[in-house]
Amino acid sequence: MKATEEKRIIIVGAGFGGLRAAKVMARQGVKVTLIDRNNYHSFLPLLYQVAAAELESTGIAYPVRSIFRSLPNIEFVMDEVIGCDLEGKRLHCRGGEFSYDYLVLSPGSVTHFFGVPGAAEYAYGLKDLGEGMVLRNHILTCFERAARTENLQERQRLLCFAIVGGGATGVEFAGALAELVHGPLAKDYPRLDFSQVRIMILEAAPRVLMPFAEKLSTYARNRLESMGVEVRTESVVERIEATAFHLKTGEKIETETLVWTAGVCGAPELSDWGLPMSRGRIAVEKTLQLPGRPEVYVVGDLAHLEHQGRPLPMVAPVAMQQGVRAGKNILKQIAGQEPEPFAYWDRGSMVTIGRNSAVVSVAGFNLTGRVAWLLWLFIHFIYIIGFRNRMLVLLNWAWDYLFYERVARLILPTRKKNWGKKSDSGNDQSRG
Amino acid sequence: MKATEEKRIIIVGAGFGGLRAAKVMARQGVKVTLIDRNNYHSFLPLLYQVAAAELESTGIAYPVRSIFRSLPNIEFVMDEVIGCDLEGKRLHCRGGEFSYDYLVLSPGSVTHFFGVPGAAEYAYGLKDLGEGMVLRNHILTCFERAARTENLQERQRLLCFAIVGGGATGVEFAGALAELVHGPLAKDYPRLDFSQVRIMILEAAPRVLMPFAEKLSTYARNRLESMGVEVRTESVVERIEATAFHLKTGEKIETETLVWTAGVCGAPELSDWGLPMSRGRIAVEKTLQLPGRPEVYVVGDLAHLEHQGRPLPMVAPVAMQQGVRAGKNILKQIAGQEPEPFAYWDRGSMVTIGRNSAVVSVAGFNLTGRVAWLLWLFIHFIYIIGFRNRMLVLLNWAWDYLFYERVARLILPTRKKNWGKKSDSGNDQSRG
Repeated sequence: MKATEEKRIIIVGAGFGGLRAAKVMARQGVKVTLIDRNNYHSFLPLLYQVAAAELESTGIAYPVRSIFRSLPNIEFVMDEVIGCDLEGKRLHCRGGEFSYDYLVLSPGSVTHFFGVPGAAEYAYGLKDLGEGMVLRNHILTCFERAARTENLQERQRLLCFAIVGGGATGVEFAGALAELVHGPLAKDYPRLDFSQVRIMILEAAPRVLMPFAEKLSTYARNRLESMGVEVRTESVVERIEATAFHLKTGEKIETETLVWTAGVCGAPELSDWGLPMSRGRIAVEKTLQLPGRPEVYVVGDLAHLEHQGRPLPMVAPVAMQQGVRAGKNILKQIAGQEPEPFAYWDRGSMVTIGRNSAVVSVAGFNLTGRVAWLLWLFIHFIYIIGFRNRMLVLLNWAWDYLFYERVARLILPTRKKNWGKKSDSGNDQSRG
Repeated sequence: MKATEEKRIIIVGAGFGGLRAAKVMARQGVKVTLIDRNNYHSFLPLLYQVAAAELESTGIAYPVRSIFRSLPNIEFVMDEVIGCDLEGKRLHCRGGEFSYDYLVLSPGSVTHFFGVPGAAEYAYGLKDLGEGMVLRNHILTCFERAARTENLQERQRLLCFAIVGGGATGVEFAGALAELVHGPLAKDYPRLDFSQVRIMILEAAPRVLMPFAEKLSTYARNRLESMGVEVRTESVVERIEATAFHLKTGEKIETETLVWTAGVCGAPELSDWGLPMSRGRIAVEKTLQLPGRPEVYVVGDLAHLEHQGRPLPMVAPVAMQQGVRAGKNILKQIAGQEPEPFAYWDRGSMVTIGRNSAVVSVAGFNLTGRVAWLLWLFIHFIYIIGFRNRMLVLLNWAWDYLFYERVARLILPTRKKNWGKKSDSGNDQSRG
């Protein structure tokens, strides 16, 4: 494979897909350049725990350079991609240009507000580490302000937390938030009346966790309600303001915290690159190649591909498997062989609701309760990258479990809430 | 002590002094209100380790409300003090006003630039958690940029780190930075020529660690030099620009990283409150009372008091002992007794330089080397508040020690460098 070393291979995004693609190729002696605007990989499936003060931000992030220390064929570049010349095979970054022979695009996704008025300005996203930290700071600050004010209406508004979207992220975050509030925060604010706290999930569909069997949805709903979460299905948010939001029914609910977990899509900027975006994603060939551009692969949340008649979900396992496939296909192309179609191996899905409580759906089996929760714990534990982080996460979890405590209850300095967000968050090739 | 419960006692600042004052009074059944603009106490003696990616920010911060869970007499308010009416005994905060019968001011200090041109704009401070995180992000970003650039002059500039001030903070940070750079970062950037890295301490005095015996200064200098740190004594920085600074000798050194550890003082805003500031501090009575205001106490860095003919140092042990004294004196006043003068018990000083290397001066004894380092480790370990944080810090340290690694090498979202800083950092009652 001597000649292969001349090929310039670039991967955009150090998420689950990008990391796997880089590893597959580097292990075969091929040089790759990995670009991300952050110097770390984020374990986003646990981001909701950062927002709920359950994990420190460092518990779900790991330096990319450390991940690749044993793979010197991977060169990491911290930079922001601002455009791509598909014809000339050149990638434009803030810090310079890169020519490529093969390109893997795994930029991940951003929150999708479906054009709901006020959402981009006032809703909190939960899609990257910065957003998770901003949301945590905001929630803790709401409690500090609620403890101060003598205005009942203001206090109730500050203690009302609305989560739009009853999918996995919404359910997991609602459960974690309820445990934070009624556990450690109730101890921290002995003078505050916690019966005034409202946590609600607003889901447009008739039940939460739609992709799961109805039995599991019912279990999740019951668990959430027993934890004090209002679960409102068939509820559509029509308009959001700075201190309230309006439902389609006309109902107005006062809150300063609306967390939007109802949808994600590829970053809008990508369509400026000449990429054929459709409903926020890019339809790819079965081989994950961009139609008409056999040297460009798209993997992860950005790639739209059907599986058994339905689009593949935007989740980490899909991104990881696609990253591997894209890497192997590039190796095949270099060797003069045909790329192979992507075959998804569905290893099931799981959602945790709280202490001793989760739903798991795997190979036709449905599990709930403590067994499901232990399975969830085990799987996530295994997948978190890096021994050290894993140890820290376990330590945090063990602590929380034993002492009903939360680690990360610090209102730390962060970037401003980067909503109204074109200004700061710019492009998003780093999300994965 | 029934009548005492009517007295309104306010403490400004949850640093070492404020915490001790609050505890002393609350344990005697007196109600106190503690105000800080952050919801956490920072263990600032280890801040340099956050900046050198040795500890996570959460490792040196602990939620104030958790510290006081067992002391319900202490009410915590997260707010920013913006003024004080000494005559009317009212404290003005952003979120409202507080009347007081007794006031303890322990706002800590901010970086003091002595009016050096360009310092406020371009130098990095190392006085609060936000600054520590900003500096860490900046240093790691310099390495990312240095790995990118093909311009030799730019790379050398990015890899030059200047520390102004050879006191405890400057020496400790220089040592920690040298270990970070030549340990984990050297592994993370295998293509970078680390002989181009320069770390320098610039000290105006003839030796570093002036308050220590000359023998210890010499030891520290030798250790630093053996770790690759240039120690330049009798070096005075005259002017700082965005990408260089100028020494009094006319020498110009190109860098984008100048860390200012050469001085601290009380926040300039305090003089607007009508407090008699002199050279950034307030001269207090021997009882720590504000002259002419027997109901106001000043403790910690802000208080100027002489001890054996010299001003007390601005360090944590002084603040802690003064906090206790102020609390006890208020209890005495409430009981109709005379407040007692503050007596400083000097328990010695210690500075760590790096792995197995520290200087300790206690009760006339001078120690260096591994014994001093273990002593330093032990003392700091004991003082860090909260079992959980202590455990995490120990874990981080053990990891670093065993694997020559660093935990916190993530360039996380933070507030912008809040220099030129009146805008953001505003007042500073929270630093301790």
